[in-house]
Amino acid sequence: MPMRRYIKIDEKKVKKAHAVNYVEAVLTLDDWPQVKGYDFEKGLDFQHYLDSLFSTGFQATELAKAIDIVRQMRKTKAVIFLGYTSNMVSCGVREVIAYLVKHKLVDVLVTTAGGVEEDIIKALKPFVIGNYDAPGGALRDKGINRTGNTFIPNDRYLYFERLMMPFLERMLALQKQHGRAMASREFVHELGKTVKDEHSILYWATRNDIPLFCPALTDGSIGDMVYFFKQQHPEFLLDITDDIVEITNLAINAKRTGIIALGGSLPKHMIANANLFRDGADYAIYLTTAMEYEGSNAGANIQEAMSWGNRPDAPNAKVVGDASITFPLLVAGGFVDRQQQTPKQKSKARKGTKGKRTDVKYNS
Amino acid sequence: MPMRRYIKIDEKKVKKAHAVNYVEAVLTLDDWPQVKGYDFEKGLDFQHYLDSLFSTGFQATELAKAIDIVRQMRKTKAVIFLGYTSNMVSCGVREVIAYLVKHKLVDVLVTTAGGVEEDIIKALKPFVIGNYDAPGGALRDKGINRTGNTFIPNDRYLYFERLMMPFLERMLALQKQHGRAMASREFVHELGKTVKDEHSILYWATRNDIPLFCPALTDGSIGDMVYFFKQQHPEFLLDITDDIVEITNLAINAKRTGIIALGGSLPKHMIANANLFRDGADYAIYLTTAMEYEGSNAGANIQEAMSWGNRPDAPNAKVVGDASITFPLLVAGGFVDRQQQTPKQKSKARKGTKGKRTDVKYNS
Amino acid sequence: MPMRRYIKIDEKKVKKAHAVNYVEAVLTLDDWPQVKGYDFEKGLDFQHYLDSLFSTGFQATELAKAIDIVRQMRKTKAVIFLGYTSNMVSCGVREVIAYLVKHKLVDVLVTTAGGVEEDIIKALKPFVIGNYDAPGGALRDKGINRTGNTFIPNDRYLYFERLMMPFLERMLALQKQHGRAMASREFVHELGKTVKDEHSILYWATRNDIPLFCPALTDGSIGDMVYFFKQQHPEFLLDITDDIVEITNLAINAKRTGIIALGGSLPKHMIANANLFRDGADYAIYLTTAMEYEGSNAGANIQEAMSWGNRPDAPNAKVVGDASITFPLLVAGGFVDRQQQTPKQKSKARKGTKGKRTDVKYNS
Amino acid sequence: MPMRRYIKIDEKKVKKAHAVNYVEAVLTLDDWPQVKGYDFEKGLDFQHYLDSLFSTGFQATELAKAIDIVRQMRKTKAVIFLGYTSNMVSCGVREVIAYLVKHKLVDVLVTTAGGVEEDIIKALKPFVIGNYDAPGGALRDKGINRTGNTFIPNDRYLYFERLMMPFLERMLALQKQHGRAMASREFVHELGKTVKDEHSILYWATRNDIPLFCPALTDGSIGDMVYFFKQQHPEFLLDITDDIVEITNLAINAKRTGIIALGGSLPKHMIANANLFRDGADYAIYLTTAMEYEGSNAGANIQEAMSWGNRPDAPNAKVVGDASITFPLLVAGGFVDRQQQTPKQKSKARKGTKGKRTDVKYNS
Repeated sequence: MPMRRYIKIDEKKVKKAHAVNYVEAVLTLDDWPQVKGYDFEKGLDFQHYLDSLFSTGFQATELAKAIDIVRQMRKTKAVIFLGYTSNMVSCGVREVIAYLVKHKLVDVLVTTAGGVEEDIIKALKPFVIGNYDAPGGALRDKGINRTGNTFIPNDRYLYFERLMMPFLERMLALQKQHGRAMASREFVHELGKTVKDEHSILYWATRNDIPLFCPALTDGSIGDMVYFFKQQHPEFLLDITDDIVEITNLAINAKRTGIIALGGSLPKHMIANANLFRDGADYAIYLTTAMEYEGSNAGANIQEAMSWGNRPDAPNAKVVGDASITFPLLVAGGFVDRQQQTPKQKSKARKGTKGKRTDVKYNS
Repeated sequence: MPMRRYIKIDEKKVKKAHAVNYVEAVLTLDDWPQVKGYDFEKGLDFQHYLDSLFSTGFQATELAKAIDIVRQMRKTKAVIFLGYTSNMVSCGVREVIAYLVKHKLVDVLVTTAGGVEEDIIKALKPFVIGNYDAPGGALRDKGINRTGNTFIPNDRYLYFERLMMPFLERMLALQKQHGRAMASREFVHELGKTVKDEHSILYWATRNDIPLFCPALTDGSIGDMVYFFKQQHPEFLLDITDDIVEITNLAINAKRTGIIALGGSLPKHMIANANLFRDGADYAIYLTTAMEYEGSNAGANIQEAMSWGNRPDAPNAKVVGDASITFPLLVAGGFVDRQQQTPKQKSKARKGTKGKRTDVKYNS
Repeated sequence: MPMRRYIKIDEKKVKKAHAVNYVEAVLTLDDWPQVKGYDFEKGLDFQHYLDSLFSTGFQATELAKAIDIVRQMRKTKAVIFLGYTSNMVSCGVREVIAYLVKHKLVDVLVTTAGGVEEDIIKALKPFVIGNYDAPGGALRDKGINRTGNTFIPNDRYLYFERLMMPFLERMLALQKQHGRAMASREFVHELGKTVKDEHSILYWATRNDIPLFCPALTDGSIGDMVYFFKQQHPEFLLDITDDIVEITNLAINAKRTGIIALGGSLPKHMIANANLFRDGADYAIYLTTAMEYEGSNAGANIQEAMSWGNRPDAPNAKVVGDASITFPLLVAGGFVDRQQQTPKQKSKARKGTKGKRTDVKYNS
Repeated sequence: MPMRRYIKIDEKKVKKAHAVNYVEAVLTLDDWPQVKGYDFEKGLDFQHYLDSLFSTGFQATELAKAIDIVRQMRKTKAVIFLGYTSNMVSCGVREVIAYLVKHKLVDVLVTTAGGVEEDIIKALKPFVIGNYDAPGGALRDKGINRTGNTFIPNDRYLYFERLMMPFLERMLALQKQHGRAMASREFVHELGKTVKDEHSILYWATRNDIPLFCPALTDGSIGDMVYFFKQQHPEFLLDITDDIVEITNLAINAKRTGIIALGGSLPKHMIANANLFRDGADYAIYLTTAMEYEGSNAGANIQEAMSWGNRPDAPNAKVVGDASITFPLLVAGGFVDRQQQTPKQKSKARKGTKGKRTDVKYNS
């Protein structure tokens, strides 16, 4: 066994190595909040789970910070801009967003074409839980579309077409009547009137007059309909300049603003861009799975956002993880008032560690 | 505006395109479980949150499947192998694991060196919540080590050294007394005896005689101590062959086995490898952030695991996301018995949609 | 050392475990292509590097497949749709795209607002290499915007404004002259006429009459200008319905089509959507960092694309990795003709293993 | 169309918004290196590709920095510690590492069990290129194991067993002869003697007496063999304390050290830990796909490493991406001497932009 030889090592070097490794801490941070997880001896308690997030570390802590920021947004009556990509509507986050819109807990919405049309389609007939691994060719043969592990059989799109073709006729009539092209938020507003489903985002956006922007409205099934519709009606138009004026004015005019972006793409960018006109939002929360290393806007971190004009002193949080899990938790912690809790829950919460949390200076 | 020309398009082609886009669905999946999110009109209800995961889609659904699999593991009295990387102990997942070990809800543990030593260090003095963005040089100057957004001031390592040096003396004495080198699980078992903290994993592993394997035991601070200790005591040894016999026997002898792996690295691999001796585990759950595209074991998906011998018919789930958020939810849904709930929670749960879920065939 | 006990194990069980572990392979795949990396004994040879990708495994193999697909696209004269997010223009991929457009190697372009405006801004003054870690507040104080590790001092945006304000006046004049709102590709076509920089994508798109679609044209700095411009000229419009007709017609009319998408967002989705009208593209290549677990279109895998109508038999590849590294390699391998090589390189290539590659059936 | 109303906006507010958006840049960074991609007008030129990485931005720039750091390591004769996870050996990176070991371009190796055994198995019979999507159950039925998109039919493991069982007998004889348990690097050293394949890492490590550490040696197929072997020979041992002494001494004794870690897990951690004894390595390069948000060592960024004692002034780079693509490029740029180039290539290189690069201060 010729390899068994220790490199000769000087005893002084070993001592030095020891000194290097065991330096005294200048700061011992004795009064900082301790890392500590959920205490399951308490059984199942949602408020305890939410309260335990902050002290759990890693993304749990970031989620707790985001919850705290939502509470600050609401306390200071910030105008809340909520952006979400279409997959958020494909999954059950749709109903959570609809709840926020119904109760006027958010003020401005931005989404992509899929975020509009899937909300409508679900109002006609639901999507179902499938799986990630189904072979694409086999699904296609059965007329089933897949988004992640959700399945959307094609009949949903046929129902949607039946709704849309007469709707486009009406929109063209409106265009002619008013002598001008519509903006996306007007189109979406009208579309919301057709919905009967109380779990729909558009249903509540229209009823509560909450603007929903979707500048790339033609990038999806609505665009497909527009394609066929324009074969007969080439004069039909949709304008994107009007929306940019409105969303910018909304940002400039607000006393305070907060951003909540689920995913990247247009919704995140458009909201952030509008808020640059007011020197950045007062609060910002990003729920994402995208990373900063590739230079995308989707993955941009908070420091990058600051360089573009977001305020360094504005509370902000980036929570990495699938929003199908994290967004309902954000809403549970940030938007659900304690009044909605049972008396027992409330008394527990009062004794909780929540109060201490605000003392922590978030320097991240 | 010379660009404004439509490519001339044949009407027949347009019709064909329409036919292609609006094919009738062969299957409409009318009785499949619908995609539907948490209903916040119900206020804060942890059981409702857990029950809503399945129908929410994406990783929420995968987490719900994982919860269901944990319940199956427990129902069939499977021997549960829990593997976890050291960051799980750095964060508050430590206390959740300790809870499982205390109540004998898991049967075999595998971790890395950090997973052992940080559990001990925390028993001496807690880690604290810091942030991700603190400059590394500034932290070093203050004697503060950072793991993600947790801070570990260096005094913790000094306390640890004080504990370990006499402990190593004792271990060497044991080695001499028994005339053989120790295995990692024996070392860890002895180490657990030194702990007074009831939130410690080792505390309960030792008391409940649950084997904790850590074959790469020297890869961390314990290794540092061993380095200095061997300057005086070169005869001190740690053997890794004995552990492999024991963990393999545990897998072969069990009637049924289940895998829960938090993160990748050695813990995930060692558990999976041991279960190959029995033609694969009966159940497998992976909580991870690693992806399969790079060919790593950490990111390997379920299909890859099958090719190595895991049983294709064995229920399994891969949940992508930071386990600081997902693991406490897995435990809440899978390991906490309804008896621990309040009577009101139980009656709700009975009426819940939980029962239907098991009818769904998980073909993913 | 009380832990040292082997669980008693039956010898038969050990034998069975051995049998389970060492099953004979039914297939030994002796004539399949072997995994083998670059042979550095050959020194630095770009063609050898590109040829070695296929046999290297993991994403290298996927990149090799993508290169092969590009060659098939070109051989069959497929109409190539290239989509790219704005970060591709922020970084040096811009010049690589410009090369393709200059030489008419791609036929249809789709990008986001940033993908248009950063191309113009760079024609006025370049971006510079910075770093990821610069504090956002400090950069803001100096008037420096950061995208990943690139820096864009604000003077670039001032130059851009000086260009755009008179340009918008001209576009409004055109709108009035023709009595109709412009489409994004017309706006971009006109914008390309203002560019003098031969490394610009728009410069060549305009000169070579290659349509560049940017339906969300107002989502960025151009939108900011439009905001201010509309204060005086509220009658200015931009239409998004015309583009959808044109890109769909381009897809329907083509004999064969190929997709190359860099990143996700609108560019990837719009191209894929247009190709659904022809029952899917004939070839598809995705260069991305997004994953499928979150159900986003950005991360959708090939099987998901098939369920939406992309043809299962169409050659396709998904290469995971930052396109700043992978796209130039894709172009080097797929778009650069061997004629452009030196004679020595050509003779080497002829002897290379390239030929064998096409024999492999890509069943992924 | 009731939504068409602009919020009334004060003209002063618009002006202020304009001022906010178009601030003068304090710094215009006119002499910083410009973002600029590969110039394909030059045809295929590997050196130009490597040189263009720095100015391309994003991860291309990080890779260029890593290349530059390798050159610095070599210039200052740093002892280079190369760590790699087993997937690097599954894929064609194996041959690239073997090249470095053959030419003594690296000095210390650390890997996992798979990193040892797959190198040996490939020396017996190669792995083949398969695909990611093959169903796991079908592969298992054919006796084919899958790692990412590489396939390893089971006959390879049978050949490996035939090699290992007599080898273990010999190792036991050596153990008895010397009266002490072996360390992993000794075991691996002996194993290397059995290899005939000049593309093998172990072949060259043994011949060139380059220590290869693999402390978790039993975590894989070698462990399986050890399990069966110990049924007859329970006295066989493998010690992990000796390795920790040796690798620490190697780090302490070196005048300068450099780290190159491919992937995370034990190899990265063990190398970094050893270098803490000398107050951190002088150079560090991480090629990884893991991210910092989950607090894992695999994903830890450079700032985190500094907090644990790595020197803030030490040049370092983290390149995100699959090393099957990036590592051969790192070797091509950093380890291949210009002497190995053709005269034409050399003269080009001299005129290249390489020289300027070193003037850039890497503050990331």
